[in-house]
Amino acid sequence: MKHDKPVILITNDDGVTAPGIRALVNAVKHLGRVVVVAPDSPQSGMGHAITIGEPLRLDKVDVFDDVEAWQCSGTPADCVKLARDKILHTKPDVCLSGINHGANHSINVIYSGTMSAAMEAAIEGIPSIGFSLLDFSFDADFTIAAQVAEKLTARMLAQPVPEHLLLNVNVPVVAAQDFKGLKICRQAYARWQEQFDHRKDPRGRDYYWMVGKFVNMDKGHGTDVEALKEGYASVVPVTIDFTSNPMKSWLEEHWQL
Amino acid sequence: MKHDKPVILITNDDGVTAPGIRALVNAVKHLGRVVVVAPDSPQSGMGHAITIGEPLRLDKVDVFDDVEAWQCSGTPADCVKLARDKILHTKPDVCLSGINHGANHSINVIYSGTMSAAMEAAIEGIPSIGFSLLDFSFDADFTIAAQVAEKLTARMLAQPVPEHLLLNVNVPVVAAQDFKGLKICRQAYARWQEQFDHRKDPRGRDYYWMVGKFVNMDKGHGTDVEALKEGYASVVPVTIDFTSNPMKSWLEEHWQL
Repeated sequence: MKHDKPVILITNDDGVTAPGIRALVNAVKHLGRVVVVAPDSPQSGMGHAITIGEPLRLDKVDVFDDVEAWQCSGTPADCVKLARDKILHTKPDVCLSGINHGANHSINVIYSGTMSAAMEAAIEGIPSIGFSLLDFSFDADFTIAAQVAEKLTARMLAQPVPEHLLLNVNVPVVAAQDFKGLKICRQAYARWQEQFDHRKDPRGRDYYWMVGKFVNMDKGHGTDVEALKEGYASVVPVTIDFTSNPMKSWLEEHWQL
Repeated sequence: MKHDKPVILITNDDGVTAPGIRALVNAVKHLGRVVVVAPDSPQSGMGHAITIGEPLRLDKVDVFDDVEAWQCSGTPADCVKLARDKILHTKPDVCLSGINHGANHSINVIYSGTMSAAMEAAIEGIPSIGFSLLDFSFDADFTIAAQVAEKLTARMLAQPVPEHLLLNVNVPVVAAQDFKGLKICRQAYARWQEQFDHRKDPRGRDYYWMVGKFVNMDKGHGTDVEALKEGYASVVPVTIDFTSNPMKSWLEEHWQL
């Protein structure tokens, strides 16, 4: 039986007990029936991992007032798959992921568990948004990010949207009076310059911690990195078709296969 | 000091002891100086995971005749990052990933550890190819896939290619006389329809195994799924810019933000 209220599936990659997901739940729960299915532990940097080599656990938890919530032993993408098949038994009207503690703009979209959950939903034809705040700390202030989440979720529920619509939304850390609003952007070309912190363990064996410096190589305009620097929340529509049409044209012209 | 021979970095997601990576090493080792840096255990379904919460191990191994090889405790993307920073100390001329035991066509590109390694290299400006054979078994016959790998690697080294060129190559399971050659394709729109196999453990608690059925919803022509069915190896150029331009245009027209 179809519920009258829209069904809003919420997940994240910081785990069901993170402040960011609580901020998201509170921001949108008046807009529909919210169901939370989130990892039982932090999953940052998991990219679009799915769990095929081990079984998954799914347990009901009581962490939000009046909101149904489950924790899952798997990745964010696992959560979306399990939510649809074992909890909702139908497509939710929208899937929200976050609010992530930390940036997922530009190239980070590909390493991001937050975005992998939203992407998994988009592949299944569920309009989806991943929200991230440019502040890693547990005590981050989610006030502006929550307002952004409410606005965009209401917008997505208000009228039909294209199938597979998927938004990567990042929110800057600014004072309320300096926040400029929302801006539709393209993904900046940036990358991480890795350095590995080389150490020796107590037995004399080498090991390495990944550290890295984010480098924006994109000098063009209209990017998410630029918008965030100017005080906007960036909204990047993300594709689920990874074909590079420019490279395809180049290959067709230059390579006889 | 620059080596005279091109440097070919090879990795995979099935681990350094998989037959598929051995087939790849043997297929291309006459084309340059091959260095293998691959996971120490299978990493399938890891998507574009990177390891930030724990340290990485990197150990030299002796598994290929006359080819330098290392195993890493991390993911395929970790291997590429570590290889560049700690082993090669420079950009290799090409990065090859595979040959994967199992398909990575269409939407599988996003769940694929094989492709995540190739994509990591492409982000760093290293031309890259991920190779996959549509046969999961340990004893798969890599003869045709190895010929494909040799041909494309030689091609990539023969002349300059666009920056960030990244190819997702899948090879069908056909007899030699039925193999039609290579075809440049676009990614088919397909997805996994999940079913979860629900069981109870000896203590009566629920658990779930992810199973799923691959469904091609793409009836159009020119897709990788179509080419593979016809007996071609599919070559899909993959983007590292995930901005959806059609969705961006739609948003700019319909949403006042």
